[in-house]
Amino acid sequence: VSDLEDLRQRMRAFTSERDWEQFHDPKSLLLAIIGEVGELSELFQWLPAADATDLARNDPLKSRVAEEMSDVLLYLVRLADVLDIDLHPAAVAKIEAAGERFTADEVRGTAPAKQ
Amino acid sequence: VSDLEDLRQRMRAFTSERDWEQFHDPKSLLLAIIGEVGELSELFQWLPAADATDLARNDPLKSRVAEEMSDVLLYLVRLADVLDIDLHPAAVAKIEAAGERFTADEVRGTAPAKQ
Amino acid sequence: VSDLEDLRQRMRAFTSERDWEQFHDPKSLLLAIIGEVGELSELFQWLPAADATDLARNDPLKSRVAEEMSDVLLYLVRLADVLDIDLHPAAVAKIEAAGERFTADEVRGTAPAKQ
Amino acid sequence: VSDLEDLRQRMRAFTSERDWEQFHDPKSLLLAIIGEVGELSELFQWLPAADATDLARNDPLKSRVAEEMSDVLLYLVRLADVLDIDLHPAAVAKIEAAGERFTADEVRGTAPAKQ
Repeated sequence: VSDLEDLRQRMRAFTSERDWEQFHDPKSLLLAIIGEVGELSELFQWLPAADATDLARNDPLKSRVAEEMSDVLLYLVRLADVLDIDLHPAAVAKIEAAGERFTADEVRGTAPAKQ
Repeated sequence: VSDLEDLRQRMRAFTSERDWEQFHDPKSLLLAIIGEVGELSELFQWLPAADATDLARNDPLKSRVAEEMSDVLLYLVRLADVLDIDLHPAAVAKIEAAGERFTADEVRGTAPAKQ
Repeated sequence: VSDLEDLRQRMRAFTSERDWEQFHDPKSLLLAIIGEVGELSELFQWLPAADATDLARNDPLKSRVAEEMSDVLLYLVRLADVLDIDLHPAAVAKIEAAGERFTADEVRGTAPAKQ
Repeated sequence: VSDLEDLRQRMRAFTSERDWEQFHDPKSLLLAIIGEVGELSELFQWLPAADATDLARNDPLKSRVAEEMSDVLLYLVRLADVLDIDLHPAAVAKIEAAGERFTADEVRGTAPAKQ
């Protein structure tokens, strides 16, 4: 079983055992994702940008970051399950579309500006 | 190769081909995750909570939701790669810890309140 | 002095007294805003949508919500100060532009869909 | 009339004229706040941290940032109105509490770590 499918099954069992399906509508799960993204942001907010990678590649920060990233992933996988969305093929399609939209020759070394 | 590893490799190649590693420090990737979570939120914000699941399980909304969820996942996988974090075992550890913290008998049918 | 100006001055003094200007670049303040939005989201995530207004209009939840909303506002005011943005006229201009874009007769009772 | 009260009244009138009160429950407004924070994040995500302040203090970026910050503020003010929360005194109380929690002598030049 693939690892996203494994997480989907684990989250589904976790939820079912606690009778928590009633809380897992999309808007609530989205707020849960945001709560976890917020906790992840708090770990990085005051770090100098140039030091953040090194600091977060080592403990104690690395373990905390891994925990919060896991929470984001788990709620994302749970939302996908509730909506019957298969994340891996959807993500592959998205990266392939991005590859056609931003061809390497045109954007090399330049971040596309959002406006 | 597992799903998450496949996405990690695809994002790494996509980034490298465009010479975009220079933009992928943790704080920047976090802002990118938030940008995509924001786009996902905009798809749901005005939907009645009771209808959101049904609406998002069908097109045209389902395709749009799958795209934005994919973007969140791809930037999350990319951040994990930059930080040398292996997401699947970290997420399994987190759900197992949650299972011990919130035992089914104690929390069945009740959402733990954040305070 | 207006209330947004009062908060601007208080945050500026608070920051200066602690020699924290060095941490208040825009990307860091944005992550701080997201951290506080995340804490606010956690207060609401599992509440039934239909009960959330009543619950949050009364203590103990009301006080907690007011605290987290205050944190969001304070970091937003601080970011505006760092960027020399005057929030009140900017917000008035934005709502007036929205009024022209979404005329009452055209959108009455219908939430504009994001796509 | 104070700045925040003026925005509150404008948002209330804007909402009422369009019969949009039905959409403005707390969870929906929170998702709207996050949508706008996401748009703000997209303006900054790929900017070098050291250049972000200068870039965002000048047009064309400054105008775009002011627009997105305004959207965040307007939805925050609207949520406060729905919940009958008076933001200015709440924010003053929060900053005064933070002043007691983080005394200048103890934290000067050091960002408190979140854990």
